[in-house]
Amino acid sequence: MLNLSSETDRIIKFIKSYCHTSGFVNLVIGLSGGIDSALSAALAVAALGEDQVFSYNIPYRNSHPDSARDAALVAAHLQIAHSSIDLTAVTDNYFDLYAHEAEPLRRGNWMARIRMNILYDQAAKHQALVVGTGNRTELLVGYCTQFGDSACAFEPIGHLYKTEVWALAQQLGLPERVIDKTPTADLWEGQSDEAELGISYPELDIILMHLTEPELYPQCSANPAVVEKVKRLIRNSEFKRHMPPLLTRGQC
Amino acid sequence: MLNLSSETDRIIKFIKSYCHTSGFVNLVIGLSGGIDSALSAALAVAALGEDQVFSYNIPYRNSHPDSARDAALVAAHLQIAHSSIDLTAVTDNYFDLYAHEAEPLRRGNWMARIRMNILYDQAAKHQALVVGTGNRTELLVGYCTQFGDSACAFEPIGHLYKTEVWALAQQLGLPERVIDKTPTADLWEGQSDEAELGISYPELDIILMHLTEPELYPQCSANPAVVEKVKRLIRNSEFKRHMPPLLTRGQC
Repeated sequence: MLNLSSETDRIIKFIKSYCHTSGFVNLVIGLSGGIDSALSAALAVAALGEDQVFSYNIPYRNSHPDSARDAALVAAHLQIAHSSIDLTAVTDNYFDLYAHEAEPLRRGNWMARIRMNILYDQAAKHQALVVGTGNRTELLVGYCTQFGDSACAFEPIGHLYKTEVWALAQQLGLPERVIDKTPTADLWEGQSDEAELGISYPELDIILMHLTEPELYPQCSANPAVVEKVKRLIRNSEFKRHMPPLLTRGQC
Repeated sequence: MLNLSSETDRIIKFIKSYCHTSGFVNLVIGLSGGIDSALSAALAVAALGEDQVFSYNIPYRNSHPDSARDAALVAAHLQIAHSSIDLTAVTDNYFDLYAHEAEPLRRGNWMARIRMNILYDQAAKHQALVVGTGNRTELLVGYCTQFGDSACAFEPIGHLYKTEVWALAQQLGLPERVIDKTPTADLWEGQSDEAELGISYPELDIILMHLTEPELYPQCSANPAVVEKVKRLIRNSEFKRHMPPLLTRGQC
């Protein structure tokens, strides 16, 4: 079990130290209305103060209205600057002209990457770093867009399983509505992380703990077929957790 | 001195092996009209064949006309599929509405990241991997946009200094016009890599060789102030060569 209060301190120190070393005092973060970005923003504020954190919600025309509403709720709760930047025109322009055949997955990846681009541009404006919002569960199974939502300066909650994110968000008193909602990337109507992954987060975390921290979690009673599936997800997303490979210098 | 013919073989093997391991037979590459992307494309074709490589030029309204012309020349020379996708509307839409104050550097980074987004979307269409076009010189000094032109599946020439890129391009018989032109990111009128870096590529490479491979290049007669400047460029771009940092699992 995570010691929630010492873990909070450790993350705050990590954020402070990374910003100090790289010479930045401002942070930019995308708020999706979900719990990961809410917790990351709360930790950013705890580290640097509310005047140093600039938050953005970046909706598409089919984004669920609850996403923008909950993003604004989080920003208000944390008392940080909040802006909305619509990516509909930028997205439709490309797909209408060059890729009208693209299925939802391609459109979802495009949107995740446009959001990254917008956050990095706004970060340049504020002389800020972009805060990552990925958790250990999604980073391990690759449930993220490479060079999209996984692109950031540092990952304050990248070492926390989703179930730990819930616990820490509760501990920090984040709005109940955000903690209780069904996790979704909200890239298309009715999308839910757990339906898409085919497994609940608590079940997935137990398997990931066993597979990646066997010394701490030697037992796992999960269905072996499900464990195999999770192993495959980890293996197939390995490339997302590494820099593009290149050759070593040859024997000149 | 690089053995050009064995180096070519080594890169071809690297591309084949990476594609084989990850289960892809098609490649997507952005052709800027410059030598790095031309050489990377030539090596991709040598590895997988011309029918497997899909090339794109992605101009902005102020891109130099020579860029598109030379990109098409390279594609024709290599006999690979070539398309043009204009990023003007996508770019102007964002800056006009949300960031009209942005200076050329912000616009240039945005364009590099939109190009990445377009290449990844086209790669999804062709079930392809995106080929990197970065060379060792620019990767070491950070002369690239993070999550933009440096984003790719693998870097076939990422271990070669710019001066080696010239030599290899010559050896592979790439069009003279592309080899001889002044290197430029072409993000704004009259931009030149060497003017922007404040040092010529041959001079920069000699310093980088000395700093990063001292056992092979123990001597360096360059101006110490210039060497210090290059050291600073390497240090300040360190973050571009690593995944976003995250905490290790705590002492739970």
